[in-house]
Amino acid sequence: MAEEFVKEITPRAEDYSQWYVDCVLKAELADYAPVRGCMVIRPYGFAVWEKIQAILDRRFKETGHENAYFPLFIPRGFLERESEHVEGFAPELAWVTRGGGEELAEPLAVRPTSETMICSMYAKWIHSYRDLPVLINQWCNVVRWEKATRPFLRTTEFLWQEGHTAHAREEEAREEALRMLEIYRDFLEEDLGIPVIAGEKTPSEKFAGAAHSYSVEALMGDGRALQAGTSHDLGQNFSRPFDISFLDRDGQLKHVWQSSWGVSTRLIGALIMVHGDDRGLVLPPRIAPVPAVLVPIAPERAREAVLGRARQLAAALEGVHLDDRDEYTPGWKYNDWEMRGVPLRIELGPRDLEQGKAVLVRRDTGEKVPVDQEALPRAMAQMSSAVQAGIKERARNFLQERTWPVDNLDQLRFRLEERRGMFIAGWCGDDACEAAVKEATGATARNIPFAPAARSAACVVCGKAAAHTVYYARAY
Amino acid sequence: MAEEFVKEITPRAEDYSQWYVDCVLKAELADYAPVRGCMVIRPYGFAVWEKIQAILDRRFKETGHENAYFPLFIPRGFLERESEHVEGFAPELAWVTRGGGEELAEPLAVRPTSETMICSMYAKWIHSYRDLPVLINQWCNVVRWEKATRPFLRTTEFLWQEGHTAHAREEEAREEALRMLEIYRDFLEEDLGIPVIAGEKTPSEKFAGAAHSYSVEALMGDGRALQAGTSHDLGQNFSRPFDISFLDRDGQLKHVWQSSWGVSTRLIGALIMVHGDDRGLVLPPRIAPVPAVLVPIAPERAREAVLGRARQLAAALEGVHLDDRDEYTPGWKYNDWEMRGVPLRIELGPRDLEQGKAVLVRRDTGEKVPVDQEALPRAMAQMSSAVQAGIKERARNFLQERTWPVDNLDQLRFRLEERRGMFIAGWCGDDACEAAVKEATGATARNIPFAPAARSAACVVCGKAAAHTVYYARAY
Repeated sequence: MAEEFVKEITPRAEDYSQWYVDCVLKAELADYAPVRGCMVIRPYGFAVWEKIQAILDRRFKETGHENAYFPLFIPRGFLERESEHVEGFAPELAWVTRGGGEELAEPLAVRPTSETMICSMYAKWIHSYRDLPVLINQWCNVVRWEKATRPFLRTTEFLWQEGHTAHAREEEAREEALRMLEIYRDFLEEDLGIPVIAGEKTPSEKFAGAAHSYSVEALMGDGRALQAGTSHDLGQNFSRPFDISFLDRDGQLKHVWQSSWGVSTRLIGALIMVHGDDRGLVLPPRIAPVPAVLVPIAPERAREAVLGRARQLAAALEGVHLDDRDEYTPGWKYNDWEMRGVPLRIELGPRDLEQGKAVLVRRDTGEKVPVDQEALPRAMAQMSSAVQAGIKERARNFLQERTWPVDNLDQLRFRLEERRGMFIAGWCGDDACEAAVKEATGATARNIPFAPAARSAACVVCGKAAAHTVYYARAY
Repeated sequence: MAEEFVKEITPRAEDYSQWYVDCVLKAELADYAPVRGCMVIRPYGFAVWEKIQAILDRRFKETGHENAYFPLFIPRGFLERESEHVEGFAPELAWVTRGGGEELAEPLAVRPTSETMICSMYAKWIHSYRDLPVLINQWCNVVRWEKATRPFLRTTEFLWQEGHTAHAREEEAREEALRMLEIYRDFLEEDLGIPVIAGEKTPSEKFAGAAHSYSVEALMGDGRALQAGTSHDLGQNFSRPFDISFLDRDGQLKHVWQSSWGVSTRLIGALIMVHGDDRGLVLPPRIAPVPAVLVPIAPERAREAVLGRARQLAAALEGVHLDDRDEYTPGWKYNDWEMRGVPLRIELGPRDLEQGKAVLVRRDTGEKVPVDQEALPRAMAQMSSAVQAGIKERARNFLQERTWPVDNLDQLRFRLEERRGMFIAGWCGDDACEAAVKEATGATARNIPFAPAARSAACVVCGKAAAHTVYYARAY
């Protein structure tokens, strides 16, 4: 029974994409919804999202941000005010055309992002330098009509947070955008154990309407990159068309400078693909909804003794879920909780009971350690830290092993055919050269890293002097 | 300057409706959005909602519920499966008819509530009695195309939570519906200080698709009732058309029994109207985003001494916001924070400084108490409890004073013309008599209370023996 169970997850080497979907569905993170491209986030997946929200929300508030809520619907005219913005989003919009039994005079877009709606309010609220900065964040759902969808990574509707700030000075907006990117980087690396490359997007890859876009890019287990978070310096691109102006100290009326930044439920997809293995998920202890599971091994003769002690331990230990279901064998339960990525397992059998011990098992390495029952709290805290550090270390090594500097397009193409990963290459700064890389290899410019692992002297396409070093990768 | 400021809020006696809107806008709880019937919940209003969410979410989890997230869009066919449900909601639906540049084959409704979507998933997830009960809650936005809208009370889009549960037995679903209603009642009374009447809705007022609906009804400051929360025993009304069935212990395939329940951002409207006065909001300490404000009175000669001590106190005292803005007078600040409903104010002037004292002021009664600075934590905790208890007591008295038993329709009409409130009346059980009350007085049956303040022998309309005692009121 136990073996059959494990067989249900497709091995990564056989079909990575199917392995991913198996993890999502069998661990009950999410399910396909009966609406095109939509998913249902099931309780276990939503509990991961709640953990992510709690940590980020605290960090946003510590840096002076407040939450608010803006409408789901955006009048067509709003989207059209910033020309790049509407061009970028028009193909992905869902439109409400009827309401309350009548055709609407002006169709309403279901928000794909809220810059325009929020700017229309900021224009009303901001009058003086005293009203600045405005530092607002919103947790909400957004809709983008995507052609190809995949749970968590790309869905018609998804959950995210979008921060929107307004400042008196250009450099303050830039600093804010970079400050929030740094919060994302730190959160991804320290809490999710996902190493990332932080940098600036190339002009052709930046957010529709931004002056500068920044991103943190992660590498998935199959060598494809994933944009895990973005932050935008919007300049005055929105404050001009929406006329968000303030009377400055010097008596002059000026337009504000803005930033926006966001991460989404896509992070859960990254968690699966960065840490998961052929047994299923491996969740970082800091965001695991179930930090540890206690599985009693209770043959009939020792049933009451083992279960009784298991209940005592589970009640006394923080964050321990007791799996006392009697319809499954211990082996089945091990597999089940491993698949769900629970970082620690405590096994308690009749012999452990006699010796006053329990067996502590690490999800990431499978390491088993017999521990005195009274030493469990300390041993669990240590092992938990070891898992958090261990999976980050492994992911960092993987990223390093899969990052290669390349000198020319043939080399990039050849390497990429062999193995996917991150490619460090020089770029002259010409959009055409960037497009040529994509055309030839399917790899896109992920970003211009703040701290590249290597520097390139010449453009990988035209061979002219490199103005920038770029990370290229095939991406989700 | 200070006086002018207070004048901005219309007195309740002059125009209650304008007073309400003034409170919403001037206290910056919300603002009108540039989309028909929608509002923007501003940071101060959203902070109140976050407090409400935190308390309720904890209570839901303590009673075994988990959060999840279901899609915003509902296919037309789903809504049509339960005939009463679609009839009830059809007039209020917003429809997405275009997405990704194409007309949709089947229009998608923006969820007005999620019973149908969630049932379609439960049909997939529930197979055995072992899968039951399913206890899921969702925090989300919903859309109802309302004709007349008012911030928080009735808006095209609003935020709420909707619990959806499935059970093996009829009585379990009923018990769940009543358990959640009791959580709402307790939360409203103890945390929000809003006394309510808990009872069952009459058949004509029940939720479209429910077997039984229950509600908690509150009385606003103008004598109109507000349905503050509802809970529904859905019977098998949804499980049959959606075929949510399970194999029971006895080997029989059976349909599940369900409940659903919800409260919304409307609660913020109730808070304003139950506790507010002509100076603005009065927030219960348990959900006030700013529990106390410290206003330094710092004339030029004592400026640094007063501000220095104020900063020390604000840093040392929990939940105290220091208002050290130098562009406003202390009097202006008093009015500003009173309008925002901050429960406690600490005043600190040069003379207080000399005496080692501060003045503590209650928002609800205006009572001022000089307190030794070192005794502030204890005095604040006591005064905070006194405010929480005091506003509840006042609201309870108001509800009692404004609740009258009536014997016949003329009496009800006469009383209602004189003064709005709750009317306790007998009802024979005939829909026609209930409709006659509405026709004659504009009052609707709020509910059949579990514990009426009085019992009625005869139907207020036809004079036949009363099968039930009903609370009638004009309602929001």
